Amino acid sequence: MASGLVLYGYWRSSAAYRVRIALNLKGLDYETRPVHLVRDGGEQHAPDYRALNPQEMVPCLLDGDRAITQSLAIMEYLDEMHPELETALLPVDARGRARVRALAQVVACDIHPLGNLRVLQQLEAEFGASEEQRAAWSRHWIGAGFQAIETMLGDNVATGRYCHGEAPSMADVCLVPQVYNALRWKLPLDDYPTITRIYQSCNELEAFRRAAPEAQPDAP
Amino acid sequence: MASGLVLYGYWRSSAAYRVRIALNLKGLDYETRPVHLVRDGGEQHAPDYRALNPQEMVPCLLDGDRAITQSLAIMEYLDEMHPELETALLPVDARGRARVRALAQVVACDIHPLGNLRVLQQLEAEFGASEEQRAAWSRHWIGAGFQAIETMLGDNVATGRYCHGEAPSMADVCLVPQVYNALRWKLPLDDYPTITRIYQSCNELEAFRRAAPEAQPDAP
Repeated sequence: MASGLVLYGYWRSSAAYRVRIALNLKGLDYETRPVHLVRDGGEQHAPDYRALNPQEMVPCLLDGDRAITQSLAIMEYLDEMHPELETALLPVDARGRARVRALAQVVACDIHPLGNLRVLQQLEAEFGASEEQRAAWSRHWIGAGFQAIETMLGDNVATGRYCHGEAPSMADVCLVPQVYNALRWKLPLDDYPTITRIYQSCNELEAFRRAAPEAQPDAP
Repeated sequence: MASGLVLYGYWRSSAAYRVRIALNLKGLDYETRPVHLVRDGGEQHAPDYRALNPQEMVPCLLDGDRAITQSLAIMEYLDEMHPELETALLPVDARGRARVRALAQVVACDIHPLGNLRVLQQLEAEFGASEEQRAAWSRHWIGAGFQAIETMLGDNVATGRYCHGEAPSMADVCLVPQVYNALRWKLPLDDYPTITRIYQSCNELEAFRRAAPEAQPDAP
């Protein structure tokens, strides 16, 4: 479906990866505009981009003349603008929605921000953190979050082929990029069998595969 | 209104403070069950509480036998279960909702988690960060986020007495506890006139004042 949507992102950004999956799941075409987070001190800090997103972070979704930031807010927006049930990113019942959002937010609030590029750069600048220390820091927070998510998924009859039932939701959209990131940091996944199973189920879907970092035009 | 809601929180937790404001704004009574985050190694790690919230963090809202975690998910849940327009935490239009959620998520994803107790403890354990270094770390991320929020608020005609128009929303509910936290870390607020003005507007409301940390039964 032609939609006039433009996504500013970066191939390896977890938050941009989420939005790519969401757009694909909803069957929405979009134009990709890469923002290189490292080159020239980071293109996200350029005045043109800062005017779109004062946070100087990716992603930012342009819908016509409207710039929408924050990956969770973008996904909720897409779900509200395109509420067709068969591609909904949230279930219909309030309790199910709360469960899916909580799972998504464990990733988006309590794992991902702690291992973000700018945080690792600050650890190096302020505390002289070595590459190995930065990797250990990242693994620590991913592990803490994954342990909670594994319990939340394993103990609940609402868990199905995906985090919530038999269709992918916002929870899966957040989980898959975080597992990708965990693999990058070489976190062993043996303690997270449900997460691993769901990660594999998701990656059988074209919507997830097409959103993968290596499939992006700006991947090296 | 009697509601049978139980809130597990801690007087000084920003995330619990958000949920208290939201419950008050919506006129919902609730029972407070304090979880002391420091005493005895942290009551959030006790088995009984972990069974409610595998993340071992506050807040957790109990609605009957259903435990709901993550403050943003709790607020969305309250808004969906109690959709009366006059106490809505989100505006009615998708673009306005995206703006409010993005503002809320700048705080909830990109400021607050970086200055959380467990993160400061980890900085001390891994890098020997002193109290002054931990304070500087907290101020750094609050400043980066507030600079973005100030621009998002200052540049937008949708900003009113509150972050979005003339009624408090989820954005204000997240912003006020973060300003409280900033004051605790002695961050100068001179560069954030809009944030400061909105903080003052909010604190004129009983719903915000009654949710303040010092007004809680577990405050020292």
